[in-house]
Amino acid sequence: MGKDVINVALLGLGTVGTGVYKVMKQQEPEMPEKLNTVLKIKKILVRNLEKAAKKVEDTSVLTNDWKEIVQDESIDIVIEVMGGLEPAGTYIKEALLAGKSVVTANKDLIAVRGGELLDTAQENHVDLMFEASVAGGIPIIGPLKDSLSANYISEVMGIVNGTTNFILSKMTEEGMDYYQALTAATQLGYAEADPTADVEGYDAGRKIAIMASIAFHSRVTFEDVYTEGITQITAKDIAYARELGWVIKLLGVAKNTAEGVEARVHPMLIPKEHPLATVSGSYNAVFVHGDAVDDVMFYGRGAGEMPTASAVMGDVFAAAKNIVNRSGGFTRCGCYKKLPIKKIDDIISRYFLRMEVENKPGVLATVASVLGNNSVSIAQVSQTSKQGDSAEIVVVTDHVRECHLKDALLTFQKMSMVKSVSALIRVYG
Amino acid sequence: MGKDVINVALLGLGTVGTGVYKVMKQQEPEMPEKLNTVLKIKKILVRNLEKAAKKVEDTSVLTNDWKEIVQDESIDIVIEVMGGLEPAGTYIKEALLAGKSVVTANKDLIAVRGGELLDTAQENHVDLMFEASVAGGIPIIGPLKDSLSANYISEVMGIVNGTTNFILSKMTEEGMDYYQALTAATQLGYAEADPTADVEGYDAGRKIAIMASIAFHSRVTFEDVYTEGITQITAKDIAYARELGWVIKLLGVAKNTAEGVEARVHPMLIPKEHPLATVSGSYNAVFVHGDAVDDVMFYGRGAGEMPTASAVMGDVFAAAKNIVNRSGGFTRCGCYKKLPIKKIDDIISRYFLRMEVENKPGVLATVASVLGNNSVSIAQVSQTSKQGDSAEIVVVTDHVRECHLKDALLTFQKMSMVKSVSALIRVYG
Repeated sequence: MGKDVINVALLGLGTVGTGVYKVMKQQEPEMPEKLNTVLKIKKILVRNLEKAAKKVEDTSVLTNDWKEIVQDESIDIVIEVMGGLEPAGTYIKEALLAGKSVVTANKDLIAVRGGELLDTAQENHVDLMFEASVAGGIPIIGPLKDSLSANYISEVMGIVNGTTNFILSKMTEEGMDYYQALTAATQLGYAEADPTADVEGYDAGRKIAIMASIAFHSRVTFEDVYTEGITQITAKDIAYARELGWVIKLLGVAKNTAEGVEARVHPMLIPKEHPLATVSGSYNAVFVHGDAVDDVMFYGRGAGEMPTASAVMGDVFAAAKNIVNRSGGFTRCGCYKKLPIKKIDDIISRYFLRMEVENKPGVLATVASVLGNNSVSIAQVSQTSKQGDSAEIVVVTDHVRECHLKDALLTFQKMSMVKSVSALIRVYG
Repeated sequence: MGKDVINVALLGLGTVGTGVYKVMKQQEPEMPEKLNTVLKIKKILVRNLEKAAKKVEDTSVLTNDWKEIVQDESIDIVIEVMGGLEPAGTYIKEALLAGKSVVTANKDLIAVRGGELLDTAQENHVDLMFEASVAGGIPIIGPLKDSLSANYISEVMGIVNGTTNFILSKMTEEGMDYYQALTAATQLGYAEADPTADVEGYDAGRKIAIMASIAFHSRVTFEDVYTEGITQITAKDIAYARELGWVIKLLGVAKNTAEGVEARVHPMLIPKEHPLATVSGSYNAVFVHGDAVDDVMFYGRGAGEMPTASAVMGDVFAAAKNIVNRSGGFTRCGCYKKLPIKKIDDIISRYFLRMEVENKPGVLATVASVLGNNSVSIAQVSQTSKQGDSAEIVVVTDHVRECHLKDALLTFQKMSMVKSVSALIRVYG
């Protein structure tokens, strides 16, 4: 067995693509011993040949014609780091159909078409790997599929978006408000010009869909994930949280419950002693609970040129070893269950509520009784400040069904004594 | 392809063996879909048949005769969870020679004979896996070999012994002295009747040897690891450390430096903000630095029946998939380099020194000048207390070569004004 050279094609030469190119060069001396072969970048697909020419040693590998790659039978592995649903989706599909193994960092695509593409890989007896699609350089897909495979995993929970974690860290540590922190993130390159996908939780939602599918062996797509971003979080909420011993994080949560799979992204209050509470700045961390392993956590850089390239190249090395050993092509979609998806209204959680009410006697009692009438039991309620004819009430509930809380909020909307509900944040545990 | 049933043999039915037996039962309903086969425990090797009979449903699987297992050609996978060098070593070797894949949790053995056994596995075209030998349920061997394989890993550092971490946590959080904390650990079952292997750092040393070998692609055996335990750590050291913003942890450290591989286990002062600082009680964590991935950390339960069984069974599932897909037998020792091992005297570190000296003018200056004459530059020195004719001096050095510090200590020994060096602890960073 063995193969002197394995040719690879790289689709995209942006941030991650450039990282992959660098790691490929750095690892070249190690390849003969590590892989029993040498990987060679035969083609790089780019949009702008001129711009790309500055980034590579040998410009003859550059092309803007996908056919040159898909029709080249000497190319065994395609690395897709373009991002986006199309044309990446078409290219990956065609590459798999052409008998090439594919490594991708594309969370958007895998979160939507993962099942279909894994089936295509299986039918064509090639590998499809996507470690880099979740949490950058942190090994998480591999451990979920392999080391933790003998567990019934009941929960995967994580900080899987560095941009929002950076913003919340700034708000917490430096007392900034949301827009100040977003500006800082943009200036430092942690937030994109259009930060919507990050701050609204879509990016985290895609990662949660991918992890939930693997952990629970049941397909969860991005559509199934409830997402709520951090744009409503205020410095005041963070301050109250701190007083109560909590920090606010944007969490992706996937739970396998008797009533179905919960898949959601939203801000959450977590105890400051929780391992996820100390994950700050652009770091990511994923917490997994399995019946045998109990709690495990994976921590590291969730994005960036080189960390993401590390994950991509780990997969490329695995695909290469499989080609050398003829041990590959056993990719298959592990979603052999069809678990129902739970609606957000049906989840059971604790809640932190901050409300502005009229400053007059009996209001607190009325608020408490509305909650009680809607089956929302209260763990703690306090009037935190008064100003003129307004007062602020903070409520922390026991575990209640979300729809019951929402019913109570509808009642509050009709009551003149409740001026507004300023914050509604789920509480961990 | 495919195989209806894969027969496995379990060697040992102690804590981990019982866990493996449980996970095997729990996972049975999932196996057809997960593995495309069903695993069946055909034999369990035990010393005491009577005692073991209480732990299994079907006592006919019990045997105390190894030949019944090694000569049974229908057994494809042997799970070794007896521990110790012998007879486990002989059994594993014979199983591999008989063409059976082996999964083991045996750190003692792998840290000493890992290279040889991997070679035997390769020669016989079977798998040898040992995820459970390091850090219990935490996936670390897998990620080092796979997801992180495209990195030059320069450092692996971790809290890989739960017993000592529990003891140090108790000392730190509750102000206990070493023996009080050890007693608490023994009573709670965290420390064995003879705690030597844990408290002297031997257990951590074995794990560091295994991780270093994989991370640096160069064989490091237990003999190569410098070990220093926690028995000399006092409540006073912990208190001083806290004042300086540090906590004391027993760390296993492996570094790949230009001068050779450092592999060592010893107490260390780490900044209280470091991710490893918050790992308390019986938890373990391993920190890895790679050129592409930057920092990653793996955290979880480092021991115990079920977490360790999780790691064992993850490997068993992988070995089973390899048998079903005929994709296995590519185990090989990844140590294709022969890096020199650095002596502890040659490491460069910062040091925390606590000394009892005569309480008279000029002593501090003399101490400082002895250090200076031995090329030990001082970051900070302070006289912390005086009592009668004694005073206490605390010194924190800059980065110095350990042999230089030891030369200075030899000089102190000859000086009447230095009564004793009460603590010498390495400082992180």
